[in-house]
Amino acid sequence: MSALPVVLAVDLGGTAMKGAVVGEDGAAAAESILATPTDDILPALVRLLEDLRRTAMDDGHDVVGAGVVTPGMLDEQRGVVHYASNLGWRDVPLLDILRAELRLPVAVGHDVRAAGLAERNTGAARGFGDFTLVPIGTGVAAALVSAGGAVTGATGAAGEFGHIPVIPGGEPCTCGQRGCLEVYMSGAGVSRRYQAAGGEPLSTRRIVERLGGDALADRVWSEALDVLAQGLNILTLLLDPGLIVLGGGVSHAGDALFGPLSDRMSAGLAWRDRPPVVRSALGGDAGRTGAALLAFDAAR
Amino acid sequence: MSALPVVLAVDLGGTAMKGAVVGEDGAAAAESILATPTDDILPALVRLLEDLRRTAMDDGHDVVGAGVVTPGMLDEQRGVVHYASNLGWRDVPLLDILRAELRLPVAVGHDVRAAGLAERNTGAARGFGDFTLVPIGTGVAAALVSAGGAVTGATGAAGEFGHIPVIPGGEPCTCGQRGCLEVYMSGAGVSRRYQAAGGEPLSTRRIVERLGGDALADRVWSEALDVLAQGLNILTLLLDPGLIVLGGGVSHAGDALFGPLSDRMSAGLAWRDRPPVVRSALGGDAGRTGAALLAFDAAR
Repeated sequence: MSALPVVLAVDLGGTAMKGAVVGEDGAAAAESILATPTDDILPALVRLLEDLRRTAMDDGHDVVGAGVVTPGMLDEQRGVVHYASNLGWRDVPLLDILRAELRLPVAVGHDVRAAGLAERNTGAARGFGDFTLVPIGTGVAAALVSAGGAVTGATGAAGEFGHIPVIPGGEPCTCGQRGCLEVYMSGAGVSRRYQAAGGEPLSTRRIVERLGGDALADRVWSEALDVLAQGLNILTLLLDPGLIVLGGGVSHAGDALFGPLSDRMSAGLAWRDRPPVVRSALGGDAGRTGAALLAFDAAR
Repeated sequence: MSALPVVLAVDLGGTAMKGAVVGEDGAAAAESILATPTDDILPALVRLLEDLRRTAMDDGHDVVGAGVVTPGMLDEQRGVVHYASNLGWRDVPLLDILRAELRLPVAVGHDVRAAGLAERNTGAARGFGDFTLVPIGTGVAAALVSAGGAVTGATGAAGEFGHIPVIPGGEPCTCGQRGCLEVYMSGAGVSRRYQAAGGEPLSTRRIVERLGGDALADRVWSEALDVLAQGLNILTLLLDPGLIVLGGGVSHAGDALFGPLSDRMSAGLAWRDRPPVVRSALGGDAGRTGAALLAFDAAR
């Protein structure tokens, strides 16, 4: 019996390191999710990868590579994380470090762009060459896929959809700009605006649960939908995606989100149709699934 | 003496058909600019191309192909113009028609995207894999170049930068939407807003000439710069271009445009630098130069 080829895949975020042993079908043969330490992230990442490798070998698999995706601005070719505020990293040559430690083919990628490629391979965007994945969690990002490839930009910083200025001179963002999309529509933004307007300190999920019976919740959520529709229409007019996939915690708002959002998008577009807007199929696993795809590519 | 290989290149617009015989160095060996007829555009286009071919052959050149670029939504692979309001065209199989008429290798492209590729080859964006060309004339468009290729979109409709909604619930656009960028910043927009606010009927060029001595001109132009800066910052945060190239008539506004625009862009960005913003090197010839590039590609 020949050993199954697998890769070690990690989605390294500011809160959690989501690791898995993944086969070529994208399925996880083993998982390990750890809290990201505040200091010494690199040694903890290497230990997680070594633990995953041991698990894979104990199970009789053939480990052919490793893939790690991170937030921030990075040079994916050279595997250097230029800046990742969540990790406190600046100019970390992650690819070289992991190659030296693991002695395996390694790939380093951007978490959201990798998630986009994963949605295209095995998720909600199968068969789409041009689409956009918009994860709406605490903040908002986007993977822009054009002609089958992720748009990376000149400095690896493309896709900052949460910080496009949609309301001129609008409310201040934690990023220092004003009127950013995620000030109004994000897990943190909806909750903060609800409280600033006199509401209780509630999560966006709880606020969505109050819709229809809480006028303040209705107003803050409606304003969030207005801004998201405006942002997605900007994206549609600029990039002409065939599909928009929403991910992240807020994408679980279901009927409170997709129906009214689609109506607002259609109302804002006069001479072209809006693309379909659907929920992510891979959810929180998309980043790790993308890391596995990159790892198999590196192993080839 | 061997004949010089040349192509026939036409930038087909709603107002003019700009034709030329172009060599591999991008230089025009002969030019012919005709008014676009209101009816029967196709036969007039074919006549222009035949005239250009005759001129080229009389000069002893070897005509190896032809390229035509048009506005609108088109499928560049199949060479079908799905919709071009300026030409009154719907689903015109331009590539097949021109091949049958000319019996030459033919390429059909989008005017602004082709202009973008021309700026990259021989213009202001030489050496840039990721940049954006924004022609600001009567209206506003954009060629988005990512990793060396023009972003086309799922339906060939990418780059509608003039119609992104930047002012929620803003002034109505001729397109039927509200708050579009080109309502505030375009040749038509600035002139219209100046007159609507009580000014004389003047072209945007004349309005710019009055800056510093006409408070209404100052205000309308300042609002145009605000909106353009907001739009270019949206573009920068989404696509991370290494360079922004401004073209079209409004790009000749010089110091009244580039300095205050750059200042406003920098003021709106808190945590990343703005890309350099420069003027197009090819100007009104960019579309035709791009058509020639596509024609040489088709001839290969």
